[in-house]
Amino acid sequence: MNNVMWDIAHLAHVELLTPKLDESTHFFTEIMGMSISDTKGDSVYLRAYDDYEHHTLKLTAHKNAGIGHYAWRLRSADVLNEKAKTIEATGLGLGWTPGDLGHGRTYQFRMPSGHLTEIYFETEKFKPSEAQASALKNTASKFPGRGINVRRIDHLNLLSEDVAAFQNFQLNHLGGRLTETIIFDDNEVKGAWFSVNSKSYDLAVTQDHVKGMTNRFHHLTYAVNSREEVLIAADIALENDIFIETGPHKHAVQQTFFLYLYEPGGNRIEIANATARLVLDPDYKTIVWTKEERAKGQAWGLKTVESFHTRGTPMQEDL
Amino acid sequence: MNNVMWDIAHLAHVELLTPKLDESTHFFTEIMGMSISDTKGDSVYLRAYDDYEHHTLKLTAHKNAGIGHYAWRLRSADVLNEKAKTIEATGLGLGWTPGDLGHGRTYQFRMPSGHLTEIYFETEKFKPSEAQASALKNTASKFPGRGINVRRIDHLNLLSEDVAAFQNFQLNHLGGRLTETIIFDDNEVKGAWFSVNSKSYDLAVTQDHVKGMTNRFHHLTYAVNSREEVLIAADIALENDIFIETGPHKHAVQQTFFLYLYEPGGNRIEIANATARLVLDPDYKTIVWTKEERAKGQAWGLKTVESFHTRGTPMQEDL
Amino acid sequence: MNNVMWDIAHLAHVELLTPKLDESTHFFTEIMGMSISDTKGDSVYLRAYDDYEHHTLKLTAHKNAGIGHYAWRLRSADVLNEKAKTIEATGLGLGWTPGDLGHGRTYQFRMPSGHLTEIYFETEKFKPSEAQASALKNTASKFPGRGINVRRIDHLNLLSEDVAAFQNFQLNHLGGRLTETIIFDDNEVKGAWFSVNSKSYDLAVTQDHVKGMTNRFHHLTYAVNSREEVLIAADIALENDIFIETGPHKHAVQQTFFLYLYEPGGNRIEIANATARLVLDPDYKTIVWTKEERAKGQAWGLKTVESFHTRGTPMQEDL
Amino acid sequence: MNNVMWDIAHLAHVELLTPKLDESTHFFTEIMGMSISDTKGDSVYLRAYDDYEHHTLKLTAHKNAGIGHYAWRLRSADVLNEKAKTIEATGLGLGWTPGDLGHGRTYQFRMPSGHLTEIYFETEKFKPSEAQASALKNTASKFPGRGINVRRIDHLNLLSEDVAAFQNFQLNHLGGRLTETIIFDDNEVKGAWFSVNSKSYDLAVTQDHVKGMTNRFHHLTYAVNSREEVLIAADIALENDIFIETGPHKHAVQQTFFLYLYEPGGNRIEIANATARLVLDPDYKTIVWTKEERAKGQAWGLKTVESFHTRGTPMQEDL
Repeated sequence: MNNVMWDIAHLAHVELLTPKLDESTHFFTEIMGMSISDTKGDSVYLRAYDDYEHHTLKLTAHKNAGIGHYAWRLRSADVLNEKAKTIEATGLGLGWTPGDLGHGRTYQFRMPSGHLTEIYFETEKFKPSEAQASALKNTASKFPGRGINVRRIDHLNLLSEDVAAFQNFQLNHLGGRLTETIIFDDNEVKGAWFSVNSKSYDLAVTQDHVKGMTNRFHHLTYAVNSREEVLIAADIALENDIFIETGPHKHAVQQTFFLYLYEPGGNRIEIANATARLVLDPDYKTIVWTKEERAKGQAWGLKTVESFHTRGTPMQEDL
Repeated sequence: MNNVMWDIAHLAHVELLTPKLDESTHFFTEIMGMSISDTKGDSVYLRAYDDYEHHTLKLTAHKNAGIGHYAWRLRSADVLNEKAKTIEATGLGLGWTPGDLGHGRTYQFRMPSGHLTEIYFETEKFKPSEAQASALKNTASKFPGRGINVRRIDHLNLLSEDVAAFQNFQLNHLGGRLTETIIFDDNEVKGAWFSVNSKSYDLAVTQDHVKGMTNRFHHLTYAVNSREEVLIAADIALENDIFIETGPHKHAVQQTFFLYLYEPGGNRIEIANATARLVLDPDYKTIVWTKEERAKGQAWGLKTVESFHTRGTPMQEDL
Repeated sequence: MNNVMWDIAHLAHVELLTPKLDESTHFFTEIMGMSISDTKGDSVYLRAYDDYEHHTLKLTAHKNAGIGHYAWRLRSADVLNEKAKTIEATGLGLGWTPGDLGHGRTYQFRMPSGHLTEIYFETEKFKPSEAQASALKNTASKFPGRGINVRRIDHLNLLSEDVAAFQNFQLNHLGGRLTETIIFDDNEVKGAWFSVNSKSYDLAVTQDHVKGMTNRFHHLTYAVNSREEVLIAADIALENDIFIETGPHKHAVQQTFFLYLYEPGGNRIEIANATARLVLDPDYKTIVWTKEERAKGQAWGLKTVESFHTRGTPMQEDL
Repeated sequence: MNNVMWDIAHLAHVELLTPKLDESTHFFTEIMGMSISDTKGDSVYLRAYDDYEHHTLKLTAHKNAGIGHYAWRLRSADVLNEKAKTIEATGLGLGWTPGDLGHGRTYQFRMPSGHLTEIYFETEKFKPSEAQASALKNTASKFPGRGINVRRIDHLNLLSEDVAAFQNFQLNHLGGRLTETIIFDDNEVKGAWFSVNSKSYDLAVTQDHVKGMTNRFHHLTYAVNSREEVLIAADIALENDIFIETGPHKHAVQQTFFLYLYEPGGNRIEIANATARLVLDPDYKTIVWTKEERAKGQAWGLKTVESFHTRGTPMQEDL
């Protein structure tokens, strides 16, 4: 077993920047159905009802939308220490921090794409109050019955001008495996989907078609329990003036049943079903999609909307 | 066409009595996802998000649980006037009332079982405020995104010692047709399901196994859009300490996918999916279930819980 | 009560023409999950598992795709006789026929749009063999467990250059009511949705944008029990090389959750869920959609594909 | 990282014994929707449409129902060699075999409960013919559109008189972690649920209440994509005279939405949804259920049927 492949346990949390902190917070609590764990300074910490950690989303007030940082939880404290050394040796390391609300010390670094990334192990597991506790002790907290009722953080999609460089760093130094990829005829890697556990992906990186911007964010995904709930989410978005970019429909890549919304701060948020699709094969062969295959659109023929290829946060006009 | 058969347009509303008005109101608003249209005296008037009238449920404070009255909306003002005369001639009529919040004058009478029944035509259709209006103009008001999100009133189930007498009055004088029935070997009618439109039933009457009580209520049903939402409703009940009597499961009779809850006042409430099943055949032949067939339990083999056969409101201990 | 409004019980069956009878038959049996009731000459008669009549679809070999005729079942033999006289008086009547496999004598006429229409009452209800019988006696036959598993015929959509003329004939002479309509600024009626029972529509007529063609067919719809099954239908179409024109998505008009396929003969077939939406209000006010409202696309923002506005069968190139 | 914990990749296949090979084969192909990969001697090899290996089920003719053996696929050839040594040292090893149709050499051993178990790495991945290939290259083969349409093998439940002994061997020598367990007041372990990847369990062992029998089988589970499909599966079972023992309902333990059937040979088969529930936390704390908690029945209150506690295959009367 390649130890690097399994060093990461899961995607832990994402910090999103928003120029409208109050509206964004309202969106994630009242529309998405998430709960506030805590607030500190200009930041609000939130979790979905079955997220087991203190938070999976940190919203921070900022002049423009975008991503602050994201974090992986590693498999053990030992793996964390070794990993920090490995990254330091690549020259992209930034060093240790004492951590944040909800988790212990982190090692920070920048991916080749410029995205600020953290790794940690020590965490504060969410302990529900009596009122918050689920009737089923194998659920992290009560099903909210509010808005979209998202269950857990699912995956993150970043933009990068050089997907191949991102991919090499991820697979050689950080962990995970490449379950699907898009490669055009010129051998240019257009997208890469990484899995760090049995989910078919936890992080996607797709090519940034806007030149000269770095550290751009494409979308963050929360999972619900069924496709029916993704359809209900579309109605909830419609009824509450939340912009629907595209969907519900099924991606050909990874087969995700998707719905893309823009939260009030401008970041793209995906609602997806917690899919039946798992990758359990230990020597799984990466699925490679060609230009011709991708030109067919999504699984059932929907043409991909133009903004999906070009819009990321921050946007050009933000800068 | 038998004019009597089509005189009734639909089940309009039900008045439930509750010894815990506040808790019951909280159940119907926060757990069921209904909205308060108005209050008057000891009564609260509520509707589901796609109910088109002022209210479909009137909750009234009372020393015990049970049913106050229920109402049919007829097809026209002319039909109403003729129907009042027909009922008056049976000797069961009580006379005209000026109506209530949300609807015009009603003709009141008692069914042979003693249940207080009203018929009317003039109604106040719900006009949503801008904040309440749905983004889809063919929906009566906004999808709530709160609790069980019930869509509309579906049907009512009453208890009667003499189901045959109830049935005769309904079919000969009031309207509707008998779509399904349970008849035991002794030719005793154990249950009767009446449809007044294309739904497969709007009113059910089943035998009261408790002797000497009258005017008893079995359950009131609100519909959601899918079976998945009935399953989610079960989780919401579980998480909020609402007693689940039985289900989710599928009835053999009428094929309803059911979940039975007790609201805090003690009345049984059913959540069902707004089924695909319609009865469009103009000379539909009533489905007759025998004792042996009913002994098989529900559609997928679930044995019917004992309380479902015996418990109605008011309960014996209430009196 | 306007007697004309309720004279029709339901949409009974549709005869589709196909240049590929074998492939079309395979589509309706193996992909849609329907069953063959009988064959006669160049025609195959089919029904969905919960259709109660002998057939709801007649496939007839022809040089091009299109519609042969469609039929309404009326409420009674008396209504049929009166209706035939009414239509004869309009000058559009063609006269009585002895009927076809599965139903008794019909009165034939042409709608102002030229579509051949039949009305009848006497019918042969489907009697399943022991092997075909459902375990639930309130289902017309066994759930097939094959392909898309459509449950029942739902509605028909025709094309007409003069929607207003079609509408006037339908409402004044035939029956039903107008539940939704699209009217552009020039007061031109672009689409009309008629309901003859509690379903929110049974027949739609939309404007034919191709000039000089008559008797054109837009689509025929079969209902499944849930939106989840519409999604599964999309996968089944994808896996079996059945062209998906658009969907799954939700129409704003009538809120139908739709999937449009082309059967091998070229006719457009819709799979929709048997919706929760019923129109029970006896004085329901027609929903009117404007040009601006329709420009928003479907319920969740999907733009309507161009072919949906222009393609009907027969197609121009067929003639 | 405890290397033992992650040595196993996934549950690979199960050999079920059946006294009615033809009827059992018909059940798994026509009712469950699986496909035959091959046959050899008295055995039929089958897979679900998204199983990536040659087979996940081997049906073998035998005088009574029960389990022949089951197999784990390990993470690598190296892990396999080391694991064989580890097991040999425990004294429970049986030795190497050259393998079977579809996979390479295996190391065989008996669990403390007597169950014959195999481990292997080399496998023959399923290569669909053109006709079998899915339109989506990330699916192992075409969605069948036949019967219950199971997607993949999910988990296995064995019976053992001494659950603790089984558990110790599994966790100390084989791999996986204990995600949930039932422990009664006398510290007796009544049930143990093991996960070897991110699924919340792959193998369950529950106490055999019948004394003196060994090597008994409780159930084998195949997953479908949604709860709606579990409900449809119940109808398909009902329509095809397949005995439904209990369900559909939701387990409190592991939250599985279940349906239990008896295949014609007598073995219990579960249909479950491929759940949203994943265990990604690397230091997850085992959920412990007490006697009082289990006495509450299943998640929504369904009492567990008696046969679920006592019936395994082979049955006492078989011997």
